[in-house]
Order: sequence, then structure tokens, then C-alpha cells
Amino acid sequence: MTIDTFILTALRSPSGTSISGGEIAQKLGVTRAAVWARVRELRALGYEIEASPHEGYRLLNSPDVLLGDDLMSRLKGDPLIGRDIRVFQETTSTSDVIERLAADGVREGVVVFAESQSRGRGRLGREWISPAGKGIWFSVLLRPNLRPIEATQLTVAAATAVARAIESETRLMPQVKWPNDILLGSRKVAGILTELSAEVDRVKHLILGVGLDANFEEADFPERVRATATSLRMELGHPVDRAGLAVAMLTELERDYARIRSGRFDAIATEWEALCTTLGRQVSVRVGDRVLHGRAESLASDGALLLRTQHGHLERITGGDVSLKK
Amino acid sequence: MTIDTFILTALRSPSGTSISGGEIAQKLGVTRAAVWARVRELRALGYEIEASPHEGYRLLNSPDVLLGDDLMSRLKGDPLIGRDIRVFQETTSTSDVIERLAADGVREGVVVFAESQSRGRGRLGREWISPAGKGIWFSVLLRPNLRPIEATQLTVAAATAVARAIESETRLMPQVKWPNDILLGSRKVAGILTELSAEVDRVKHLILGVGLDANFEEADFPERVRATATSLRMELGHPVDRAGLAVAMLTELERDYARIRSGRFDAIATEWEALCTTLGRQVSVRVGDRVLHGRAESLASDGALLLRTQHGHLERITGGDVSLKK
Repeated sequence: MTIDTFILTALRSPSGTSISGGEIAQKLGVTRAAVWARVRELRALGYEIEASPHEGYRLLNSPDVLLGDDLMSRLKGDPLIGRDIRVFQETTSTSDVIERLAADGVREGVVVFAESQSRGRGRLGREWISPAGKGIWFSVLLRPNLRPIEATQLTVAAATAVARAIESETRLMPQVKWPNDILLGSRKVAGILTELSAEVDRVKHLILGVGLDANFEEADFPERVRATATSLRMELGHPVDRAGLAVAMLTELERDYARIRSGRFDAIATEWEALCTTLGRQVSVRVGDRVLHGRAESLASDGALLLRTQHGHLERITGGDVSLKK
Repeated sequence: MTIDTFILTALRSPSGTSISGGEIAQKLGVTRAAVWARVRELRALGYEIEASPHEGYRLLNSPDVLLGDDLMSRLKGDPLIGRDIRVFQETTSTSDVIERLAADGVREGVVVFAESQSRGRGRLGREWISPAGKGIWFSVLLRPNLRPIEATQLTVAAATAVARAIESETRLMPQVKWPNDILLGSRKVAGILTELSAEVDRVKHLILGVGLDANFEEADFPERVRATATSLRMELGHPVDRAGLAVAMLTELERDYARIRSGRFDAIATEWEALCTTLGRQVSVRVGDRVLHGRAESLASDGALLLRTQHGHLERITGGDVSLKK
């Protein structure tokens, strides 16, 4: 834990509204002057920290920026996901950064956020719109003990986690479209990109990328997607607290990843089915060059979509573009 | 094509035993002095090139080294695999190098050889013994239009290609043990490692790693594998031409990859079945923590092993450790 993380954690502690510089200094084994220097840095970053000679420090307000130390200080317990959080002002794509960390042998759980991405990507290498400061874009490095075919479990888990986080932070009611879209009404507000590095029969590492259109205004979307995309801000009529949402998403992901590791993906699948706008509907699924038509029946134990085709066959779909029929 | 590649190609041309420096210079648009300078470099690398004032240059002998230019000059036609060949004297693992090239967006077909590897690896991160100059270790970057579950096709194709190359170059009769071992008698002489980078439903790139114990002597193997490993040299009683074998393996891989790309994996599967020591045998297969027992019945269309278990079920195995029962 860095000094900043410790200070922010202390300032957010529910047990008291203020904490003295001396108390922080003692716990950290640094001088009061060092604490004061860090507080000034945090203020420069936009944190409103009141300093009173008698009562100590008090956090009045946090800025609308994503800071690794701040996010880490807000995660409860001793989480795996987010034990190391790095925020880039700009990068090509947060998943690119994680890929390099994975190659360097970094252990699972590291999370990379970016305030803007120059080459944000969605599925199939599609562009992901990432205007500076308007969204929440992050990627997580995981090293699950799964076979490649089971990687869909992580997409399903992440979609469920993101939907739960949006609901708890905004009271909006998101739905999930298989496999990786989160919708508000019929418009997409977030997406998941699961990428893996694998041998034929085991995942070496997996990168979970999440993009949430938090505070986009309509003009932030290119013309071509305006009819099908939305943001939390557009739905609510006011901006959202991005850091709070980021923490909520990481917390929910932590919970789902723990369930996957202990073999309880079925519990996630049940939640997913309740959120899912795809199941029970007539859909078309494009898989590579093929288009399948049928009814989305259920989710298989590995996260695959089970499609009852118009010919009565049950097809296992591990990935594809789903269109809902009217 | 570099000057060296051109010179070596010209010297190996079956139409004449000699070629004049003037002719090479003219075709390349360089001076005769430049050609002479390169010939001296090639001699320094170990190529025995005779220079006669009247008849020109003649290649008498090639050294036992792997040189990218030399290998490229020996590939026929306009191959995809090997259109760019890079040889490292030492690296951690040829697949590590390819991984970095893939991240840089290099197109498929590039091949990396190493004369030694400090962290050569087999399946499941196991160590791959790589003493300098004794083996042939290379990795190929491919970008096939496949789903992750179909990646086994490449392992099967590579095993078949390596077996054919060994047979054509040495007259030894290798067999294949599903999924990725090449045996002489009951001892392993070569192995394949297929690694992929993928989204859930499509391969982004695939790295085919091949390791062949070409000129190992018994002492080159650690004690613990001596009973189960062998080399071409140990089987033949004399060293083999590593460059010739490397070219043969790349040529056979080119052929198999063309078949996969045109949807004719079934033809490879047929060849594979003829080479396979696994099929029809009682085997145990370890898949993660499970061990399955049964009869290896056949190969599925995606390269999976179909195992008839002792309970009569037909299990699809996409990866695992196979042990043949006596």
C-alpha cells in the first residue's frame, strides 16, 4: 500500500470523519511532514481535503479522475482483482498494456485503466470509441485454470458483474445481450472483450477488457452508432461518479471470479439468465461466414449459447454476433 | 531476396554447376566486387565456394549452421511459411520471439530458428532441452481463420509434416503419438507446441513451435529422460544435415497449411491416422485433473481425439497427456 492509498483509506474510514496527521504518520512510519506533502499532492490532483490543526484531515470531495491509489484504497478486504491498479492518461488500448504485463510474467489481478484510448477495440478488432475522461475503460489480467473453450465463462461473468454494478450505482436496470453487450433499453452502454493466450488445451492468461460509456454526451458518439448506443449520463440526465462505478465493477468482478475459481459458474449463469434479453427470443447469430436462425434456449455450463435452430437442432454457440428478431 | 539468398539460390541451381560473378552481378544490379564481397562473407560462415576465373562460382559444401538466407534460398516456389526466416544464435524460446513479432503486427509465415534456447518449452510450460547446435528449434507465426477449438488441426498438421520430413530425409519411420509427439520406436524425437492468441470465438494468431532432437548424443539428454528420448543421430549412427531437415519440415508444413486453409484438413487427418501409434490402442488420457481410460478410436474433424471410454461413452479430447497401455 502506498502512502497515498493509506491516506485515502484512512480519510474514507467510516469510524471517524477526521484523522490526525500524527496518527497517519505513526502508522506508516513516516514523518508528519511527509504526510502533509502527500496531502498537498492529493489536493493538487483535485481531492478536497480539509486540514484542521486540532482534528486533522477530512476528505470533503473526490475529483472526477481515476487514480490507481484511490481506486485501490476503496476496494474492500484483500482482493485479487485490483491488488495492483495502474491508470494511464492515454494508451492505445488497456488490453495492449495488460498483454505486455502478461508477457513480463506479472501475476493475475493487475488492472489497467485509461482516461483515453487511441486504439480502443471491441470484438473482431472493431473500433471502441474512447473520448478522454468520458468513459471507464479497463482491462484485467487473469490466469484461470480453464480450457480455451471455457473462456466464455469470463465474458458471461464480466457482463453480469458490470450489469450489477450499474444497477447498484445508478438504479438503472441494464440487460445483457449474449455474449458481451450490456444494454439500457435496446441501446448498448457497455461491452466486454475477452482475449486469451493459450495452449490448445489450457489458458495461459486471459485479458478481460471492459468499456462503459459512463459520461458520454450524444455528440461524443459518431453519427453511425447514435441510434444504437447510449451512456449512463444520457439515461440519467446527469453525470455519474466514474471512480465509484469503477470500484463497483471491480468488486463485482472479484465476486464472480471467486465463484468461477471455486467451480460455481452455475450461480453466475443463473444471474445472467435473469438479466438476459437474448434467452427465449428468436435470434440470428452470425458465426464467421454462417448465419444461424433460431430460438436462444439457454446457457450451457461453459457459457456457450444453446440455440434451437429452425431445423430443430440444438447448436452450441461459443461466439458470434447475435441479432434479436422483432 | 537478399544478395546472399540470391547467390546461394544461383549456386544451388540444378541447371549448372557453376555461375559467373558477372551473371549474378547483372541480375542483382550490383557490381562484381559486391558479389565477391558477399561470397567471401559466405565462406567465412563456412560455405565452401570454389571461385574459378573462367567458370565462376561453385558451391561445394554447406556448413552445419542454420542461416536465414540459406534456408530461404532452398524453399521452392513462393511459400507463405518461411517467406521471412530469422535465425538467433540464442534466445529464450523461438516462440517468445514470434510472440513479440505478432504483437508488432508482422504478417503470417515468418519463421524464427534458434541455435540454442535458454528457456525452450514444451506443453504445459515443461522444459524443452535445447543444447546449442544439436537440435532444430523453430516457431512459425500463423494467422489462420479458425476458432480456438480448431487449433488442434495445426498440431496434427505439424506432427504429420515433421514425421514426413524425417522420413524423406533419413528413411527412418517415425510415428505420431496424439497430439504432439513424434516417436522413433517408443522414444520421443520431436514435439510440437501450439500456442494461440484469441478472442473467445476466433484465433488472432497462432504460434507453431517445433523441436527436433536432430544431432543429440545420449549425454545431451538429462538422465531422467534418457529412457524415453532419442535423436536422429542416435538412431542413424551419424549426424544429420540440420539445414536440409529444416527446409524439409518447412516445405511439408507449407503443404499442410495450404490444405487447412482450403478446408482439406481431412486429407491431413488420413495421413495422420496412418502414422499414428495411438489409434486403436488402449490408452489413459490425463486432462487437467481427470484421467480417462479407453480406446483411442479416431480423430474428429477438428483434430480432437475420440476416446471410447471403459463405460462406452465417446469422449472428445482436445488436449491432454496420452499414455499407451501395454
